[in-house]
Order: sequence, then C-alpha cells, then structure tokens
Amino acid sequence: MIVVMEPGASEQQISHMVDRVESLGLRAHVIRGTERTVIAAIGDKREYTRESLRSGPGVADVVPILAPYKVASLEVKPHPTQLRIRDLVVGNGTLGVIAGPCSVESEEQILQTARAVQDAGATALRGGAFKPRTSPYSFQGLKEEGLKLLAAARAETGLAVVTEVMAPDEVELVAEYADVLQIGARNMQNYRLLEAVGKVDRAVLLKRGPSATIDELLLAAEYVLNEGNANVILCERGIRTFETHTRFTLPLATVPYLHRKTHLPVIVDPSHGTGDRALVASMAKAAVAAGADGLMVEVHPDPEAAMSDGYQTLNLEEFSTMMEQLVRVAAAVDKKMPPRLP
Amino acid sequence: MIVVMEPGASEQQISHMVDRVESLGLRAHVIRGTERTVIAAIGDKREYTRESLRSGPGVADVVPILAPYKVASLEVKPHPTQLRIRDLVVGNGTLGVIAGPCSVESEEQILQTARAVQDAGATALRGGAFKPRTSPYSFQGLKEEGLKLLAAARAETGLAVVTEVMAPDEVELVAEYADVLQIGARNMQNYRLLEAVGKVDRAVLLKRGPSATIDELLLAAEYVLNEGNANVILCERGIRTFETHTRFTLPLATVPYLHRKTHLPVIVDPSHGTGDRALVASMAKAAVAAGADGLMVEVHPDPEAAMSDGYQTLNLEEFSTMMEQLVRVAAAVDKKMPPRLP
Amino acid sequence: MIVVMEPGASEQQISHMVDRVESLGLRAHVIRGTERTVIAAIGDKREYTRESLRSGPGVADVVPILAPYKVASLEVKPHPTQLRIRDLVVGNGTLGVIAGPCSVESEEQILQTARAVQDAGATALRGGAFKPRTSPYSFQGLKEEGLKLLAAARAETGLAVVTEVMAPDEVELVAEYADVLQIGARNMQNYRLLEAVGKVDRAVLLKRGPSATIDELLLAAEYVLNEGNANVILCERGIRTFETHTRFTLPLATVPYLHRKTHLPVIVDPSHGTGDRALVASMAKAAVAAGADGLMVEVHPDPEAAMSDGYQTLNLEEFSTMMEQLVRVAAAVDKKMPPRLP
Amino acid sequence: MIVVMEPGASEQQISHMVDRVESLGLRAHVIRGTERTVIAAIGDKREYTRESLRSGPGVADVVPILAPYKVASLEVKPHPTQLRIRDLVVGNGTLGVIAGPCSVESEEQILQTARAVQDAGATALRGGAFKPRTSPYSFQGLKEEGLKLLAAARAETGLAVVTEVMAPDEVELVAEYADVLQIGARNMQNYRLLEAVGKVDRAVLLKRGPSATIDELLLAAEYVLNEGNANVILCERGIRTFETHTRFTLPLATVPYLHRKTHLPVIVDPSHGTGDRALVASMAKAAVAAGADGLMVEVHPDPEAAMSDGYQTLNLEEFSTMMEQLVRVAAAVDKKMPPRLP
Repeated sequence: MIVVMEPGASEQQISHMVDRVESLGLRAHVIRGTERTVIAAIGDKREYTRESLRSGPGVADVVPILAPYKVASLEVKPHPTQLRIRDLVVGNGTLGVIAGPCSVESEEQILQTARAVQDAGATALRGGAFKPRTSPYSFQGLKEEGLKLLAAARAETGLAVVTEVMAPDEVELVAEYADVLQIGARNMQNYRLLEAVGKVDRAVLLKRGPSATIDELLLAAEYVLNEGNANVILCERGIRTFETHTRFTLPLATVPYLHRKTHLPVIVDPSHGTGDRALVASMAKAAVAAGADGLMVEVHPDPEAAMSDGYQTLNLEEFSTMMEQLVRVAAAVDKKMPPRLP
Repeated sequence: MIVVMEPGASEQQISHMVDRVESLGLRAHVIRGTERTVIAAIGDKREYTRESLRSGPGVADVVPILAPYKVASLEVKPHPTQLRIRDLVVGNGTLGVIAGPCSVESEEQILQTARAVQDAGATALRGGAFKPRTSPYSFQGLKEEGLKLLAAARAETGLAVVTEVMAPDEVELVAEYADVLQIGARNMQNYRLLEAVGKVDRAVLLKRGPSATIDELLLAAEYVLNEGNANVILCERGIRTFETHTRFTLPLATVPYLHRKTHLPVIVDPSHGTGDRALVASMAKAAVAAGADGLMVEVHPDPEAAMSDGYQTLNLEEFSTMMEQLVRVAAAVDKKMPPRLP
Repeated sequence: MIVVMEPGASEQQISHMVDRVESLGLRAHVIRGTERTVIAAIGDKREYTRESLRSGPGVADVVPILAPYKVASLEVKPHPTQLRIRDLVVGNGTLGVIAGPCSVESEEQILQTARAVQDAGATALRGGAFKPRTSPYSFQGLKEEGLKLLAAARAETGLAVVTEVMAPDEVELVAEYADVLQIGARNMQNYRLLEAVGKVDRAVLLKRGPSATIDELLLAAEYVLNEGNANVILCERGIRTFETHTRFTLPLATVPYLHRKTHLPVIVDPSHGTGDRALVASMAKAAVAAGADGLMVEVHPDPEAAMSDGYQTLNLEEFSTMMEQLVRVAAAVDKKMPPRLP
Repeated sequence: MIVVMEPGASEQQISHMVDRVESLGLRAHVIRGTERTVIAAIGDKREYTRESLRSGPGVADVVPILAPYKVASLEVKPHPTQLRIRDLVVGNGTLGVIAGPCSVESEEQILQTARAVQDAGATALRGGAFKPRTSPYSFQGLKEEGLKLLAAARAETGLAVVTEVMAPDEVELVAEYADVLQIGARNMQNYRLLEAVGKVDRAVLLKRGPSATIDELLLAAEYVLNEGNANVILCERGIRTFETHTRFTLPLATVPYLHRKTHLPVIVDPSHGTGDRALVASMAKAAVAAGADGLMVEVHPDPEAAMSDGYQTLNLEEFSTMMEQLVRVAAAVDKKMPPRLP
C-alpha cells in the first residue's frame, strides 16, 4: 500500500500516518520526494487497511499494490482450472457451450430445444425456472415445475442443466435439480446468496454485474470460493454504458484480462451482451477468438412467441448455423469444441 | 406502443404484426410514412407486450408510450407522499435528515453519535448491523448485537432507526428493531428481498443501484408497493460512470425528475454519492437546493478509526456545521427542516 | 511516480527499471514488500516518464503522484482567481450569470433577450453565431452577421458578449466582436484551437467535454494558460453516462472538487447539463449551493420557435423567476450576485 | 416522427401541435390511446423538426423514426463499399491492416518498422507527425519532418501512408504526403476539420470519439461525404466507460451493428481500444471474427523507448506472430487477408 500525502502535509501528519501504518501490523517506509512525501506500507494486509489509511489527516490518496482477492488469483493457483460437469467441459482449452431458452415454458418447448442444441453441439442446457424480472407484472417463471422439466430434458439428453437461483432459501431446492447454479448479474453482489451457493456441491456460474469492476467480480467469486466451493465459472455478459444501440456493451477484453488474473474459466453471454438477435453470432465468434472458455446463448424454437427475451434469442436453425461457424473459429485459435456424446 | 417497421418491411410482415398486436388485446393502427410504416398499438398493456413485439419479423424497434410502473406513478396518485416515522418526517416540503455511522461498532460509538446528530438536527439514526461488503475478508457487521445497540440509542434519543437488511430470511429479525428497512444499492434488484420487505409493517428506504435507470428504480419500488407496503422512500446515492475523482457520480437531476414522475419522497446520500468527506457538505446543500426531501449522511465520532467508509464520513463537528448551513439553504428553497424534539 | 512490479518480477527486471528511472533524471528508491517490489521514482517530471516506464519489462503499473497540470494548479497559485469582463464578475465569491439563446437568429430576438436577461440580473449575453451541429443538415448559425448582432446588443445594454469559436482561423474574427471566447465541449481537446485562443487578449470559457476527466479538462486549460492567456473560466456542462432521462448527467461534485485543485473560476451550464427545460432551475440552484462561481443558461423569447435547443431553453419569464430564486440560494451560501448596472 | 403528448394534455395543446407539425411541411396523424394521445408526423424531414416539436406545450417526448444520416446509409447505397488505396484494400470481404508507431521519431525507426510490418502482411503504414497530446508538455510530433519520413518509407516499401491531421489549415500540407488522412477520436466532432478533409482527394479514416454514439459517428462521416469525399473508413477504437483495467472499453458489437446501417468499411484499433500490449492480439483476432474490415495496430521496434503509447505498442516480433494468428481467424470467417506485394 502506498500512502500519498498532500503537498503541504506537516511532519506531524506524516509521523501520525507512520504510527497508524505500524499499528496495523505493517512496516512503514517514508520516501520524501521533491514535492510530496509518500509512505510505503509493507506487509500482506489487503482489506480494511486501505479504507482506514485513506481517512488519515493530510492523506491525498492510498494506492493498493496487492489484488484484494486471493483464492481466485493466479498467484495462488497458476494453472487454469478446467471444470467437467456431465458433458460440459469448460476451461484450459476446451469450450463449453450452454444453450437454451430464457425461460422454461413447457415440456415440449424445453425438450425440443434440448434435443436441437445437443444436435448442434451444445453440452449444457440453460433455462430459467425462477426468473428475476425488472417488473413485478412480468412472467416470473414456472418455479419448481420448471426445474422438473429441466431435469426431464437432462434425463433424455444427458445435457448438464444450468439454471438461476435467486435467494438463499431456494438454493437447496434448485440444487436438487440443477448441475450448475447460475447467479444472475443483478445478484452478483447478493452476498447471502453467494455464501449459500458456496456451501452446496454444485458448480456456480457467476455473471458479472452490469456495473461491476473486475475486482468486484473476483471478490464476488471469492465469497463462493471462501465457503469451500471451488467450482466457479465467471461469465461476462455486458456492462452498462452510454451506448443504446445494444442492450449492454460487451467488453470482450475482459476475457484475456481475466485470464491474466485468475485461473477460473471465463465464458461469454452474447445474447444479453448485445440484446439483439442479429448481433449474437458475430459476438459469439468474437468471444471465442478473444479466448473465451465457453458461451451461454439463448435459443428458443419460436423466439417471437417466447415469454421473455425473444428479441435476443436465436431460433434452432440460427443456433445450428452459428455452431458450424464457431467450429471453424475455435480451430483457428486452437480451442477444442465440446466433445459430442457417443 | 409504437411498432416501427424496417424500411423494406413487406406487406406480409406488416400484416403479421397487425395480427400480433391484436392477439395481445390491443388495437392496431397502421400509419404509412414516406419511407417507413409504423403501427400504433393502442390499449393499456405495459409489460411483455413490448418484448414480444420486438421479436417480430421486419420490426426495427418498439417504442413504449406508457411508463412501466403504476402504483409509484404520479398518474395514479398526483400528490406528493409525506411519511412520518417517529421524528422522521420526509416528503411534501419537509426535510428528513438521517445520520450516523456506516457500521455500528460499539455502544459508546452509537450512543455518542446518536446524541450528537440529534443535537445537530437529525431526526433519524442510521447504522449498519448487517453489512454487505465487497470482500468476504472485510468486517461484516455486529449483526443482532448491532440491532440491539441501535434500539438502545433510539430508547435514549427517540430517533427513528434506519438499518440495512440483506436477505429475505433476515427481514423479520431486522424489523423487530428497526423503524426503516434499508435496501442497499447492490440489492436494488434483489426481488425476493423486495417482496419480503413489502410484506412487513415498516417503511422501506430503497437506494438506487449504481447502474439502475430511473424506470428500474421505480419498478423496484413497485415490487414493494405491489405487496401492499406503501411506505417507500427513494434514495439517490450515485451512479457508476467513467469519473474516478469521486467514488460514484451523484446526478442530482434525479431529484426534480423523479418528482415529476412519482409521489414517493426522494432523498440523497452525499456520502456514498461522493466517497469523499471534503465534498459531502457541498453536495448536501446542492441536494436540498435541487429539491430533495431529505438526506442520509455518514457521521462518526472518529472517522479515521471507523471500521468502514471513514474517508467519506463526517465527524460530529463537521456534521453540526453542515446542518447549520443546510438550515439556510432549506429556507431559501422553502423547505421545512425537521422539527426538533421538545 | 511509483513503479509497481509484477509479483514474479526478476532481479534483472528490477535492476533494468532502476536504470531506466535514473536515465530519466529521477532518483530510484526500491522497496521490497512481502509479495511485490515497488520502485519510487523521485523528482519533478510529470509527462512522458509515466508512459515510458509503463512499457518496461515486469512492470504491472505506474502510479503518478504529481498532478499533470501546473499553471492551473492551486499549488502554483493558492488563491481563487476572479475575472472581471465588463459587468461579468466571476470567481472568488461572486456569481457571473451568462444568459441568452443557443443561436443568434435575428436582431429583434437577440436585443429582446439581452434586455430581458439584463433586467433579470444577468451580466453577460450568450448567443451562438458559429454553431457546431451534430448533423451537417442542421442550421449552422448566422456567422459574422450573428457576431454583429451580438455586438449591437452589447452596445445597447453593456452586457459582456460570450460566443463560441470553432476553428483556429476564425479566432481573430470572433475576437473582434466577443468579450469571451467559448470553446465548446466537442472542441475541448481541439489543441490547435486551444493554442489559438491562448494567443489573443480575450477571456476563454472552456466547457468540459462529455467524456473528459478532470485531469483532461485542466490539461486543456493548461494549453490556453501555457500560451500566456491567464483568463480561463471552466464550465461543467454534463458528462455522458448510461442515463437517458437527461441529455447529459450533470455531476455537480465537479465544482467543489475543482475548487480544491485549481484557482480558476468554475461555472455550470444547467441547460446542456439536463437537456430539459423543466429541470434547469432546480439544477441552477443546486449548482450555486454546490459553490459554483456562475451559470450559463439558455434563454429565448419563444423557445418553441428557437432554431436550436428549444427543449432546454427557458423563456424570459421563466428565467426571471429562476433569478429571483437564485438570489435567495446565493445569499444562503454567502455568494454575491452579480452587481446590477447603475 | 412520433409526438407523444403528456397524459393530461389538453385538446388545445393537441391541436396546437397538429398545426405545428403541418407548418413544418409534414402530415399530422392523431392517434388517441386509452391513456395518452400521440401524433404521427409523416414525411421526410430529419433534423430541426424534432428539436422544434420537443419544445411544444404538453409534449412528453418526440421519437424519431428515420435515421438522421443519409449518404452513409445502407438505405441509399445497399452494397458494402470497398476502398483501394495503393496496397491497402479495405471493405467488402478484404481486410486492410494498418500498422506502425504512434509517433514518427526518426528515419531509422520508421523505415525499420515499415519493412517489418510489410513483411508481416500489413498493407499500410501508420505514424503520427502531428500529435494531439493531452498535455501541452508532451512530445507534439516531428510535424512536416515526420511527414517526409513517412513518404520516404512509402517510397521504399509501397505501403500506403495513414497519418493524422489536426486542423483545417494543416490539411493541405498533410495531404501532400499522406494517402489517408486520419481524424483522431478527439476531433471526431471538429466540424471545420471534417469539412476541410471532405474537400481534398484523399481517403479519410474517421475514428469514433470515446463518448460518441453511433448516430453521431455516422453524422460526422456525413460531414465528410456531404463535401463530396466518398472515401471514408470508420474506426472503432473504444469508448469511455467505468472500466479502468483497460484504457478504453472496446465494444466490438459496433462492427456488425454498423454493417447493418452503413456501407462504409469499419476497422478496429485494438491498441487504443485496450491500452495494454498484452491484450492487443486477442482483441485483434476478436475484431476480425466479429467481421471487421481491417485493423489499425501500433507497432514499434522498441516499445519501451517509444516517445508515446509504448505500453500499448507491439514490438516487431509480436506483430508478426499476431499476423500469423490473424490469417487463420480471417480464413475461419471467410475474409481475405490483404494481398502481398509481388
């Protein structure tokens, strides 16, 4: 940590801050520049320290040197993690493709989708049973009935089931049916929920919040890891910016950047990331070229009739075409496509 | 709703969309312009409709005409709501001032703060017992012990107690001690939590998420109102933008804008809104001049020793000075300051 | 400057960076932490140094300690600057109010506006003769004819004339007629233009670009100051964020923040800052309460008929009412309103 | 254009707006919904109209239906434009790769770079002679001397020369030496400069401003096209968002989105778009996979010694490796790499 003093900071203030640094169990090292004094605080303390020092008298800024996350960090585990959940293999050179409707709507809808996305090469099925909706007047999902339909689709196809969980007291129920518990972007900093999914034996798909920094995303993952659940997949799904021609802005540089900071697999959701069916395939290919470990894509047999998100949902044929293109891009960047079922 | 067709949309596509509009229970009105056709969909349906129509063939855009929220709307209740919770009076011309530490840390800390902010003119005490922290390694609050200390401070001073609740299954406990349940910015779209606080007999302070639009904020309020709890206070606390010289960017135009859309009281949090103790008083005055119905301010007897947020926290004297200045600004814009206890 | 090395940086990399720091004329001071090494580079070099060091092998980041601007800095001139340009007095406790139409349209329009804003208490007249328009098909201004009309309005009222200049080779012409040369937000980093207005004997009103950081704004001012023109007024007019309910987001914390960094006067433009006539007066009052040294407001006798920006323009009566309210807010924060002409 | 009236708009206000629409030469079509009235304004007028109508009494909003740009639009020219400038072929299926240093620094530097990037497959050379720098104290470029060195490199290699022009009165000079005139991001709305480059017989490379919307970018292009210069290349180089781990946020969805709106070629600058050498190659590949028509990449023989932008600049070997990877990605999305010189 570097404590930068104000230009006119007094000797008394500097000495006060040195005491303060030492009282936190750190070593203080004073450097007097031509215009300012800075104090290097040496030692391995990440949190609290900074907040505390920033409030000191005469302090202009406190610059952290260490990353605030630990278990997620490449410094702790220098090799990329690969997760295997039924047919879904994701990370360390293999692409996991998760596809399916925004909401589970009916047995026919989910079975038809499951078969089609599997044929096209996907290895996991997504589908919302508990739906977080911006408006209380919107369709809220089929709830447990939806979970049962997902499980039925898995029974038939073998696809891993990925579905969202919205509250700590729903974790147990969802975990009964799902292979991967999805934490939606709006819940990325719902800490009680993160703690709850950290305690169950299911992989967790953690979506980046639309205004979350990378440090905040990794610290959210850290909440899960810290409870003992090491199976976390990170998902970039777009951030909120001034752009309005897309629903969110999809910053693909997140992918290679995260790969330099964490061993966790990083996938991309081009459906929410664009909010526009016409842009999904292009951004899926771009995500793979950028090095993503997988994709999460909304697919529905009849997007126009979908109960949610139809405007960003591919139909079965569009998804199949996209997958054919992806195979070529994946090969061009030496990624393995997910293995087909025998 | 206005359905805007693509420039080259075919007659078949137009006719398809007319059918679709009518199948949703709306009247379709086709307008043929010189370059494009638009279809006006007439009737009072707010949600789902738009998503559904946007997925149609040949559709370029769907422009909503009606606001998506109802109960929060000025159209439904044209006069400003005023809430009275013990000494805290907020809305319709009276300023409510909520002050106190980020976290409850000890009996002495909270009692000393409560007495001082009351002397300075505040009518409610804030203090976190359950703390949502970005890092799992940070101080997480005193939990129920903190709630008890807040209740003790209320017993002595009569100040209303405002404190955060983080999960649906903690609502009952927090409601036992608190007068106002605070929903933090990170939980603004935690819908299970919104539903839970909508079911208890406590006022709710709903903070705007850092990337939430105004519609999303009002729809989050709608989740609470829709459960039957009409006592909602909205709080602007800053949004995330490219600016780094403040922790968040505090957009005060939110205040007069919300007053044109909703009857709910709107307060401002200049502490989180700036993240910088040196800017808090200026922005508090600006918020009142902009028409805010109240303020929420972080105050601590010794900010440098605070266990969280010290850098944006006023000490007791700074708060008292700020309140003296606020009295003058409030008078200049014809707002009543909160009445003192006898 | 603090050079932060990567966790695994080698001794060779560290020693390379020490040499590099010294070759730039700085002293290098190596601090070995428990997990990382940092090198403090001591001495007064602001630019180039950072870019150069960031490219070094094993370097994770370079943290600047000194502000990159000099002449604009409070460190160089610790007392607030007050400018006096005819009746316009701005800075160090006195409010300058600049009002007038977006575009000069006719003699009658500009004269009527000038008389009315003067009666209401404004001390400078704004009006665009050269108009930067987003579309080439929009009205581009009356050009020199507009400048002549502004000069005629000044001859009658004595108001200082503020008008925009768009290109280096138009500076001379505009300076013949104007008292204050306005640099529009889109030209904040048009360096040739900044150099050109730095060379003439006219005050400069520099508007913040919608995505400019505070450092970038002050460095743009520095381009003008560096040419010898010390009469620079900074203007906050809103930044581009994800918010769409206002044209821009007006971050008033800019005002007190700038006052802690620079001696230059800081005014606010609530017309562009909101893009909504209904919000202008509230934000004007908020700006003054936040400590602004002045305001720039769009006023037109008939906003609906204005050739540009009518939706954010006050009519004469609205402006007069706003000024009456401002007098009270200004008094509440101990600011002097501009002195009236005798 | 759709004029949306306020919920309580009076018959008089509606009738006033109908008159106003007709006085603008448009047909008015009134639609009375259950809660609001809207007026469709039919006819082909794009600008001014909207601003004018938004100021009307009782008007809540005015929604444009037509795009504000014309010549750049796919509606006007439905087939993608391909430009050929010496070896640089860009658009309609062929990738143009522009590479070179941020600044021209010396004869040796520019010649060595030119030869190396040509060997690696680039078909144009970039290099700044006139440098727009955030600080007046930074290196401002070699000016005409730099242009001469670029021309010398072209004489030797045949590469097309791309270089920035900063002011209208420098256009003639730069056009003497350059094949493509670059308009930097900070000058995207410098309208006098756009007009000036619209009048010369040189292709124009127009970089998106960091807070420009897509409409604003296309309208800036329209300024050039409107002067008669049809050879415009658009360049996405990142927008300013809350993200700080990259210098800008690179929104690659711009590429397929623009291809649905305009026939102009669209290239991507992953150097400025990330500001981080370690991310450049990944984002270059992603850009091509997203459908970009070309790339602009910063390359320098010794980035650490570069006078500007070294931290985002590839060395010669890194560039060569990136080009080998690009060839594979380009093939996977059926793009032709630029043809080599014989």
